[in-house]
Amino acid sequence: MVSFENDYNTGAHPEVLRRLMETNLEPQTGYGADRWCASAAEKIRLACQSPEADVEFLVGGTQTNAVVIASLLRDWEGVVAADTGHVAAHEAGAIEYTGHKVLTLPQHDGKLSAEELEAYLDAFHADANREHMVWPGMVYISHPTELGTLYTKAELTAISGVCRKHGIPLYLDGARLACGLLCASAELTLPDLAELCDAFYIGGTKCGALCGEAVVFPRHGRPAHFTNAVKKRGALLAKGRLLGVQFDALFTDDLYFRIGRHEADMAEKLKSIFRDRGIPLWLESPTNQQFVELEDRQMEKLGEKIAFSFWEKTDETHTVVRFVTGWSTTEEDLTALEAALEELR
Amino acid sequence: MVSFENDYNTGAHPEVLRRLMETNLEPQTGYGADRWCASAAEKIRLACQSPEADVEFLVGGTQTNAVVIASLLRDWEGVVAADTGHVAAHEAGAIEYTGHKVLTLPQHDGKLSAEELEAYLDAFHADANREHMVWPGMVYISHPTELGTLYTKAELTAISGVCRKHGIPLYLDGARLACGLLCASAELTLPDLAELCDAFYIGGTKCGALCGEAVVFPRHGRPAHFTNAVKKRGALLAKGRLLGVQFDALFTDDLYFRIGRHEADMAEKLKSIFRDRGIPLWLESPTNQQFVELEDRQMEKLGEKIAFSFWEKTDETHTVVRFVTGWSTTEEDLTALEAALEELR
Amino acid sequence: MVSFENDYNTGAHPEVLRRLMETNLEPQTGYGADRWCASAAEKIRLACQSPEADVEFLVGGTQTNAVVIASLLRDWEGVVAADTGHVAAHEAGAIEYTGHKVLTLPQHDGKLSAEELEAYLDAFHADANREHMVWPGMVYISHPTELGTLYTKAELTAISGVCRKHGIPLYLDGARLACGLLCASAELTLPDLAELCDAFYIGGTKCGALCGEAVVFPRHGRPAHFTNAVKKRGALLAKGRLLGVQFDALFTDDLYFRIGRHEADMAEKLKSIFRDRGIPLWLESPTNQQFVELEDRQMEKLGEKIAFSFWEKTDETHTVVRFVTGWSTTEEDLTALEAALEELR
Amino acid sequence: MVSFENDYNTGAHPEVLRRLMETNLEPQTGYGADRWCASAAEKIRLACQSPEADVEFLVGGTQTNAVVIASLLRDWEGVVAADTGHVAAHEAGAIEYTGHKVLTLPQHDGKLSAEELEAYLDAFHADANREHMVWPGMVYISHPTELGTLYTKAELTAISGVCRKHGIPLYLDGARLACGLLCASAELTLPDLAELCDAFYIGGTKCGALCGEAVVFPRHGRPAHFTNAVKKRGALLAKGRLLGVQFDALFTDDLYFRIGRHEADMAEKLKSIFRDRGIPLWLESPTNQQFVELEDRQMEKLGEKIAFSFWEKTDETHTVVRFVTGWSTTEEDLTALEAALEELR
Repeated sequence: MVSFENDYNTGAHPEVLRRLMETNLEPQTGYGADRWCASAAEKIRLACQSPEADVEFLVGGTQTNAVVIASLLRDWEGVVAADTGHVAAHEAGAIEYTGHKVLTLPQHDGKLSAEELEAYLDAFHADANREHMVWPGMVYISHPTELGTLYTKAELTAISGVCRKHGIPLYLDGARLACGLLCASAELTLPDLAELCDAFYIGGTKCGALCGEAVVFPRHGRPAHFTNAVKKRGALLAKGRLLGVQFDALFTDDLYFRIGRHEADMAEKLKSIFRDRGIPLWLESPTNQQFVELEDRQMEKLGEKIAFSFWEKTDETHTVVRFVTGWSTTEEDLTALEAALEELR
Repeated sequence: MVSFENDYNTGAHPEVLRRLMETNLEPQTGYGADRWCASAAEKIRLACQSPEADVEFLVGGTQTNAVVIASLLRDWEGVVAADTGHVAAHEAGAIEYTGHKVLTLPQHDGKLSAEELEAYLDAFHADANREHMVWPGMVYISHPTELGTLYTKAELTAISGVCRKHGIPLYLDGARLACGLLCASAELTLPDLAELCDAFYIGGTKCGALCGEAVVFPRHGRPAHFTNAVKKRGALLAKGRLLGVQFDALFTDDLYFRIGRHEADMAEKLKSIFRDRGIPLWLESPTNQQFVELEDRQMEKLGEKIAFSFWEKTDETHTVVRFVTGWSTTEEDLTALEAALEELR
Repeated sequence: MVSFENDYNTGAHPEVLRRLMETNLEPQTGYGADRWCASAAEKIRLACQSPEADVEFLVGGTQTNAVVIASLLRDWEGVVAADTGHVAAHEAGAIEYTGHKVLTLPQHDGKLSAEELEAYLDAFHADANREHMVWPGMVYISHPTELGTLYTKAELTAISGVCRKHGIPLYLDGARLACGLLCASAELTLPDLAELCDAFYIGGTKCGALCGEAVVFPRHGRPAHFTNAVKKRGALLAKGRLLGVQFDALFTDDLYFRIGRHEADMAEKLKSIFRDRGIPLWLESPTNQQFVELEDRQMEKLGEKIAFSFWEKTDETHTVVRFVTGWSTTEEDLTALEAALEELR
Repeated sequence: MVSFENDYNTGAHPEVLRRLMETNLEPQTGYGADRWCASAAEKIRLACQSPEADVEFLVGGTQTNAVVIASLLRDWEGVVAADTGHVAAHEAGAIEYTGHKVLTLPQHDGKLSAEELEAYLDAFHADANREHMVWPGMVYISHPTELGTLYTKAELTAISGVCRKHGIPLYLDGARLACGLLCASAELTLPDLAELCDAFYIGGTKCGALCGEAVVFPRHGRPAHFTNAVKKRGALLAKGRLLGVQFDALFTDDLYFRIGRHEADMAEKLKSIFRDRGIPLWLESPTNQQFVELEDRQMEKLGEKIAFSFWEKTDETHTVVRFVTGWSTTEEDLTALEAALEELR
C-alpha cells in the first residue's frame, strides 16, 4: 500500500546505506569516539557556520529531548513548552521521568508566543510563592512544530531575546528540521539557529537515516560530563559509528538539504492535489506534515488504498487526518493518491 | 591497525546489512509494530522453544538493563548483582537513575553464588530493620560474565531455584550470549534460559548487528504497558524495523549461532597463540573475551601494531589486557597478532 | 501584629500541647509503631465509620501528596488534577520528582468537573497514540480547594463514579479538611470521604497540630510495603509518637471538629466584617480562606496593622488579598481588624 | 518497662518543651522564615565559630541526607560512604531514589580510611572507563558512626584533605553528634567540623528534640535555591518554627552540650555495669550506643525487664544487642538494669 503515514516508514536514503556498507569493515573505537562522528561533527559545524559548536549524536528524538533537557536544567527548574509540544504531549512522561516538570503555555498554530513567554516569566519572578513553584529554567520549541508550522525569523529572534534577557537557554527540537529549512517559506537557516538557540537537534530519523539525531550546542555549550549523562540515561550507542557515518553522509554533498527540499516539494504537490479536489486543508502547514479534513466515509474508502494517520475527530461525520511526505515519497505515490481520490467522487 | 579491542568495532555482519538493504523501501508501521519485528520475535520464540514468550527489541545493553529492571522492580525493591556486574560497575548509575539500588554480592570469576544469594536473601528476610532497607526484588546475572566466564547448567538451575523459592524474577544479561551458547564448554541453551529465567536479553550489538538487543520474557512475562515504559525512558525507536530486520536476519539460517561459533573458534585460536608463547592467561575464559598479563614493555610495543584494551595493572611492571574476538575477526587478524608477538621476543 | 496570614502561623492547640507533655516520658517504639499512633488510627477509623481503613501518619502536606501519589501510581501513569491543584501549582515539582506527570484539567472555582474528567478519560482511551502518552492513573482533588471552595456531595459522588468506572483511585487532599467538614454549607462527612475516595488525608498542620497529616486508605487500601515507601522518601519520623499523640488528641472529645467549627465561625464573622464595609469578596468561599479585593492604598495602610497575604493583582490599582482564620483566631483579632478597617475610611 | 532501646524513645527534653509552650501563640511566618529559625541559626553559627555559615533546618535524618546529598551532587556523580554508612545500609534506598549511586568503601570500626579513600579516588581518575562509571562527587561520613565510634581529629583532617585535594565536598552526618562531641575521648569540636567539612548536620531528634536536624554549610556553602530543593522533596515544614524554637532551646545555655554529656556519662556507667559483670563489650564505643554480646538465654530473660535492640547473631547461642542512652536515661534506669542483670546469674 502507498503510504503517507509518516516520514519514518521506510529505511534509509540509499546514499546513507551506501556509506554504511563502505565503512562497514573499518575498525573504529566505540561510543562515539570514531572518526566518522568526528567528521560528521565537523561538517555540521561548517553547515552551521559555528566553529565553536559542540556536536553530539543520539539515537532518537524523545531520548534526545530527555538527555538534553535533564542536562541543561538545574534541580529546581522545569522546561517551558507549548501545550502541543512533543515533550508535553507525546513522550509518555519522559521529561517528568528525569524529575523535572514541563511548564506549558498555550500554543498558537503549534508555536509559543514571545510576548506570552515574557509575561509568564515576568509574572513568575514577581510571584511571592516562587520557592514553592518550579522555576522556568529553559524553553523548548519545535521547528517545524508538531502541526507542521514554522517560526519566522522575527518570532525566533524575539523568543531568543526573551530567553537571554532572563538568562535561560533556548532549545529547539528539529526532528523535522530539514523540511523546515528548505520549504518555500522557510526564513531560518542552520546558522540562524546556531546564533539564536543554545541547543538544538538536527533530526536524522525523519530525514533519511535509520536512526539518529545530531545535537548542536553552539559556543562550546555542551553540558559538563555529557557522555556520562548520556550513558546514565541508557543512550550511549556502543557502535557510535552508526550515527557518525549516517550524519557524515547526510552532510556530504548537501544530502540533508536535498532530502528536506524533496520532502517540501512533495508536500506542495500533495497540497495541490487536495486543493484541486476541494478537500480543505485543516491548517496552513508549509512543511511535510499536511492535515486535511475528510468525511468519515471518504476517509474509510481512501484508507483502503492509501495509508495515512488519524489526527482528530472534528464532528460526528468528519475527521482530520495527516499525510506526511518523506525522503522516499515518489511521484508515483502522488499519482496513486490522485487515483484513489478520484474514486471517492 | 588490526583490532582485538572489542566485539563492536566493526559494523554489521554482511547478511544483516543485506537484509537491511532488501527491505529498505518497504513501508512499515513505526515503533516496533512492523512485520519484521513480528517475524523476528516468532523466530526467537522458536529458537527458545518458548511459544508463550513475549519478545521486545531495544537498542543497547545499558538501556535494556535499565528498562527491564525498572519495569520488573516494585517501588521498595532493588536488584541483586555481582559486584563486577555491568549494572553495578559500568553503566554510569543508569539503574540508580531509575530510583532503584543495585545490591551487590561478591563475585566469583564474575559469577554470583547460589549459596551466597540464598544466605543473603534469608538474612534479609530475618532482619528486623528491613523496612529501612532496600528489598531484594530481582536477581541480575550476566552470561557470559564481564570476565568471559559462564554459568554451568547446575549453577544457573541453583540460582533460578533460589529466586523461585523467594518469588523474585531472575534476569540474565546476554550482551555476549551467542558466544556463551556456542563455545566448546557451553552447557546452557536458549531453551534452558527460557525455562530458568524470567527475563533475558539476546545481545545483537556484540553479535553482528549495528545495534539492538532482543528481550525475551518467557511465559507471557512482559511487564504491563511495556511500550509506555520503553517510551518513557527514551528507548522507543521510530524505525523499529531497524531492530526487527536485523534480528530476523540473525535468526535466519542460524546466523546468530554461526557468529557465536565463529567468535568462540577465534577465541580458542587466540588462546593457543598466547599459550604457545608462554604468555599467561589471567583467567580461564571459554568465550570471546580473553585476558592476558603482559610486561608493560611488551604491552607498549605490541600496542603499536595491534589494538586491544587495558584491563588492570597487576604490579609495577605488569598489566592485564583484554583481547576480544568478534564476527569480523579473521584468520589474517590472528596471523598479524602472531607476527607482532614474534617481534616481542 | 494581629495575623490572618494563614492557618499555620501559631503553634499547637493547647489540648494538643498538653497531651504531648503528658506523654513525653513514656518510652515508645519508634517509626510509628507506638501506642499513640495505634490509638489515633483507631479513633480515626471510628470517626470515618470505616473499620477496615488503614491509617498512616506523615509530617506535611506536600510530602503526603508525593508519597501517596507515587505509591498509588504505576510506572506508566500520571495523576489528574485541576490546574489550580496544589500538586500542579505549588509543590515545587514534588510529584514530577517522583517521575510522574501531573495531568491538568481546567478548574472551576478550584474544582474538577466530573463531566470534563469523564470526557478526558474517554478521549484518552480512544487515542491511538496512548502508548506515547502518560496514562491517567488516579485523580487528585483538594477539599476545601486552594480557593476555599467545597465539593457538594453530588459532585464528589459523580467524580468518584467516573474514577470507579475507569478503575483508577480517587485521592482527596484534606489539608484544610476540618473547616470543610464543619462549615455551614458542608455536605460531606468523613464517612462520605471513606466511602467515595480511595485515599484521603486529614490535615493536622492547619488544624492545631505542630505538624502531621493522617492518611486514610479505606477498605484496606494501603499500598504494599508502605513503610518502605515512606522511608525511601525521607518521610519516616523516628519519634512517630509526635504524630500519634497529636492526632490522638485531635480525635479525642471532638477536638478536630471543634477546631474546624471555630475556623468556620471566625471566617463567617470575617466575611460579615468585609461585607458590612462594602469590601467585595472576590469569590464565595464557605471555609476559612477568604479573598477580598482592596484598593492598593487601602491594602498598604491595612498592612501596617494586620498581617494577610497577597493573592493577585486585578488591575493597576487593585489587589486580591487572602485572610485566613485558624484555631488560634480570636474575637480580639476580629475586633482589631474592624478597627483597622475603620481607619481606612 | 525500662528502655535502652534507642535515643528517640521518649519525647522532648523539658527545656525544649517549655520553649515550645512559651512561644506557642506568637504569630510567625511559615516555612522557616520565622524569628526562631533565625535566632537558632545565629546561635549555631556562634557555637561553630563560623559566622559565614548557612544554617538550615530539616525534619529527620534520612530526609536531611537525601536533600543535602542530592543538592550537592552533580548529575554524573555519586556519594562515597563506608559500607556500614546509614545512607548505604538503612535508608531504604533514599539516596538512589534521588537518582544517585552510593559508592561504598570498606568500613573500619564504622569509619572510612583516608588512605583507602585516596587510593579509590586516584584509581577512579586513572580509569579509562570513567565515562561509563559513577563519579565520586562527595564523601559521606557519620560521626559518631553507626557503631558508636568516633573519628580522631587526625583522621577527619586526613579525610578532609583528600576531599579538598580532589575538589569534592565532605559531608558529615551528625545524627548523634552531641554525644560524639562531649564524650571523654572526643577530639573534635563544632568549630573543627565547620573548618574541615563542607556540610554537616547537628542532630536534634536523638538529642532531646521532638524532631529536627540543623544543617550547617560553612563558608556560605548552601546550594543555590535550597528552599526549592527542600520543598521539591516534601521536606519543607509549614510551621518551620517547630524546628527553630527547638534548636534555639538546644543552643541556649548549652543545653545541646549538656544532653550530649549526659548521654556520654550514662553510657560510661552502662559500660561499667556490663564490665563489672563480665559481659563482653562487642566493640569499644566511646558514645551512647553500646554493643554487648549475650547468651541467647540471658538475652531472652533480660528482655522481659529491659528493652534493648537486636544487632546481630554471632553464633548459634550468642547475640550482639545494642543498649543506647538518651537525654531521658536516668540513674534509676541503670539501677533497674543492674537488678535485672543480677537475676541472670
